[in-house]
Amino acid sequence: MFESAELGHTIDKERFAADVPALREALLQAQFDLSESKRFPVVIVIGGVDGAGKGETVNLLNEWMDPRHIQTYAFGAASDEERSRPPMWRFWRSLPPRGKIGIFFGSWYTDPIIGRVTGAWKEGVFRRELEEIQRFEKMLADEGVLLLKFWFHLSKTAQKKRLKKLEGDARTRWRVTPQEWKNFKNYEGFRSVCEVALRETSTSWAPWLIVEGADARYRSLTVGQTLLGAMRARIDAPKVKALPTVAPPVAAPSLDGRTVLHAVDLSRKADPAAYGDQLEALQGRLNLLSRNPKFKRRTLLLVFEGADAAGKGGAIRRITGALDARHYSIVPIAAPTEEERAQPYLWRFWRRLPPRGHVGIFDRSWYGRVLVERVEGFCSDADWLRAYQEINDFEEQLALGRFIVCKFWLHLSKDEQLRRFEERAATGFKKFKITDEDWRNREKWDAYEGAVCDMVERTSTDLAPWTLISAEDKRAARLDVLQTVCARVEAAL
Amino acid sequence: MFESAELGHTIDKERFAADVPALREALLQAQFDLSESKRFPVVIVIGGVDGAGKGETVNLLNEWMDPRHIQTYAFGAASDEERSRPPMWRFWRSLPPRGKIGIFFGSWYTDPIIGRVTGAWKEGVFRRELEEIQRFEKMLADEGVLLLKFWFHLSKTAQKKRLKKLEGDARTRWRVTPQEWKNFKNYEGFRSVCEVALRETSTSWAPWLIVEGADARYRSLTVGQTLLGAMRARIDAPKVKALPTVAPPVAAPSLDGRTVLHAVDLSRKADPAAYGDQLEALQGRLNLLSRNPKFKRRTLLLVFEGADAAGKGGAIRRITGALDARHYSIVPIAAPTEEERAQPYLWRFWRRLPPRGHVGIFDRSWYGRVLVERVEGFCSDADWLRAYQEINDFEEQLALGRFIVCKFWLHLSKDEQLRRFEERAATGFKKFKITDEDWRNREKWDAYEGAVCDMVERTSTDLAPWTLISAEDKRAARLDVLQTVCARVEAAL
Repeated sequence: MFESAELGHTIDKERFAADVPALREALLQAQFDLSESKRFPVVIVIGGVDGAGKGETVNLLNEWMDPRHIQTYAFGAASDEERSRPPMWRFWRSLPPRGKIGIFFGSWYTDPIIGRVTGAWKEGVFRRELEEIQRFEKMLADEGVLLLKFWFHLSKTAQKKRLKKLEGDARTRWRVTPQEWKNFKNYEGFRSVCEVALRETSTSWAPWLIVEGADARYRSLTVGQTLLGAMRARIDAPKVKALPTVAPPVAAPSLDGRTVLHAVDLSRKADPAAYGDQLEALQGRLNLLSRNPKFKRRTLLLVFEGADAAGKGGAIRRITGALDARHYSIVPIAAPTEEERAQPYLWRFWRRLPPRGHVGIFDRSWYGRVLVERVEGFCSDADWLRAYQEINDFEEQLALGRFIVCKFWLHLSKDEQLRRFEERAATGFKKFKITDEDWRNREKWDAYEGAVCDMVERTSTDLAPWTLISAEDKRAARLDVLQTVCARVEAAL
Repeated sequence: MFESAELGHTIDKERFAADVPALREALLQAQFDLSESKRFPVVIVIGGVDGAGKGETVNLLNEWMDPRHIQTYAFGAASDEERSRPPMWRFWRSLPPRGKIGIFFGSWYTDPIIGRVTGAWKEGVFRRELEEIQRFEKMLADEGVLLLKFWFHLSKTAQKKRLKKLEGDARTRWRVTPQEWKNFKNYEGFRSVCEVALRETSTSWAPWLIVEGADARYRSLTVGQTLLGAMRARIDAPKVKALPTVAPPVAAPSLDGRTVLHAVDLSRKADPAAYGDQLEALQGRLNLLSRNPKFKRRTLLLVFEGADAAGKGGAIRRITGALDARHYSIVPIAAPTEEERAQPYLWRFWRRLPPRGHVGIFDRSWYGRVLVERVEGFCSDADWLRAYQEINDFEEQLALGRFIVCKFWLHLSKDEQLRRFEERAATGFKKFKITDEDWRNREKWDAYEGAVCDMVERTSTDLAPWTLISAEDKRAARLDVLQTVCARVEAAL
């Protein structure tokens, strides 16, 4: 794997001087074309051994290219902000939008590799993390990201020479600490961990490019040319539409018409006389839970989906009524903004994740892709088909970040929806709540029901279960939601 | 995940009787069209809980369809033959060719699920296995296999009822052993392991279809209709060519022209006077190793690749000269046969894997895909790009099966190749060894060299390293190959 990066590659001064001007010009042109067309973002991951010129190369790329369209992120120890979110959050927030280049100096590879080399990570955990990285990068590739991963390598002899040289020069002596020599001593251990990491994550969609780091001119020109070639090829490629896929069925058909939605007991009613007291008792219980010291180390995430006029807003208000306004945020999900459209689909949900000790309430959510986008054809079949797994991966990340996730589907009958639509249309202050789109959605009732059943089947998990709520009676729905939230938080604390 | 399979789905007798004739006719028609067009194979995986009707459904499918084009495999304990090969071998050998249907009753899911439920498999090992299954199934899908996975589910109550019923009937009493009741006791544990397994392997290319197993008519009709729908959709879909991909670069370019091939020391020569003795000593050493009792538990796999006229055949003969003819097989790889073309790419290599205690010598190999097929355009870019990872997965399976894998690239200069070509053309009994194709390949020398370097970079691993041999001097090459094989076997035993 590292054979070709131990050959002593070099580029002489003259050739370097001759090649660089044209390379820079071409890189700037590619950057310009990219930022004009906004066709895709470029993510450059930089990894490798100490002293192999990672930092110098990053600096050079910044010098060669237009700094307005390139951004470098060095990931050191996590900040407070970052420690309060799932581990991948810091990388998501740094993803460049379409048209821009992001350089990741240190990345999602750093922790697994260091963890495994030091022995803090067991082999199984390490391997599993590599598989998750593979899936994460597949998702990026599917979302159109051009992902280039450069690994800077030095043979053991070359690394020793390099560290000695840095140490011998008064201006660079500070860069070689006892830690570097300690790492050097474990060169073989590091190498074999890296070999596994690189092999397992060298995929057809994002292969590692191994660059010999000993000669500065060679490594700079190699990275520059590779970057240029990959950007140019992608920019100049004709736009192609996704192939018509023959998708396998997502779930077994329900031949007798019975579905999880039909199993929801719509006759469930709250006793109007007792409702006030019951509501107050549940809200008190939730309030107490939210002030439990253990809650400070957790995050509560509530997801509300449901048919139009099912009463999501009302249910949400009964939750927030029990909480301190400083500790919750409501995230209403509408069409994505321009900035959000320039990013992978899940980006706009990652950016709104609340920190530890907070409650995040999503009024509609990442399930839009397998509901409205699927039914209305806003995305390709391939896109929503892969979304189930991406969503499960996302929610696994949430669980890793100690989130408590409750997902609600508010279900009501077609008749009751009609009654509410007509009531809204007739009532002055409710008129704004009913639009032509609501009527159009209603026509696709059956398609939506099918999508909901598939969604529950594919994404209701132990870590993040769906709760189907009868919303036929608003009061009963509100009590049921509160009750479910309280029970889940109690079980988790 | 199992919600919709606990609703008590039923189909009444009348509807069943009315629907089945049309379904059977349509299934037979689909089977006929499939076997005529030979466009793809169908793999049906059957899994689920005890008593949920798995066996009955398999029997029914066999009854409904044309038995000439369908084959059922029930995987119980592994046979001697199978235990002597890597774990996945038994499934590979059972894959149906294009145009046929294979039913896998028990599959690659059985061991991981049982292992995890009984606690014999640790969580990490289990999860990793699921990831490998995912990759295996992705490979099948990429190779055109229509993969349908049915999971037969029963709620705890339904399972109890079913077991009691079987027990109460004299004709079926034998089917309920203490083991079934023991499994039933651990219903929750089994369910939660299965939930993880199904969730992690419900991918867009091969989702699990969960079927409620309580009602025989419902489950039969559901499986039949789903199978029909999926086959029909795939048969009727228009043929589409692969999209032109903008492939990321596979490896960093070598700007100074230095490659692992150029680093091979072609001036290496054997001393003709000492050659005979050296050869004999090495052959004796290898012979002794092959008779070591520990060797009986291992398999030695030698892969020979190299430019035309590099001397693969001669090197192989010096190996076999040291071995007992009952214990080795030479597998010369030429164009695939019709039967092989009807299977996934790696199938023809899997089928030729030798058992424990044997030596398998591949004269050319699975690397054809990233060499000749890539250079000559015999497969799409997407195909050879994904092959590196598939090959690494394959060789990991070999390592799991306790194989010792040595891979040789025999390298020689362009001039020396020309000399040998001309010598062959001039020598009567060697003329048959030189064809127009050899001359054509020679014109693509540089493209082949690039492919070889990428191959070494992407597939030389600790488990299965590449050894680059200077073949400029045939005697030196033969000694180097023997020396490498002996050293690797000694290290492994």
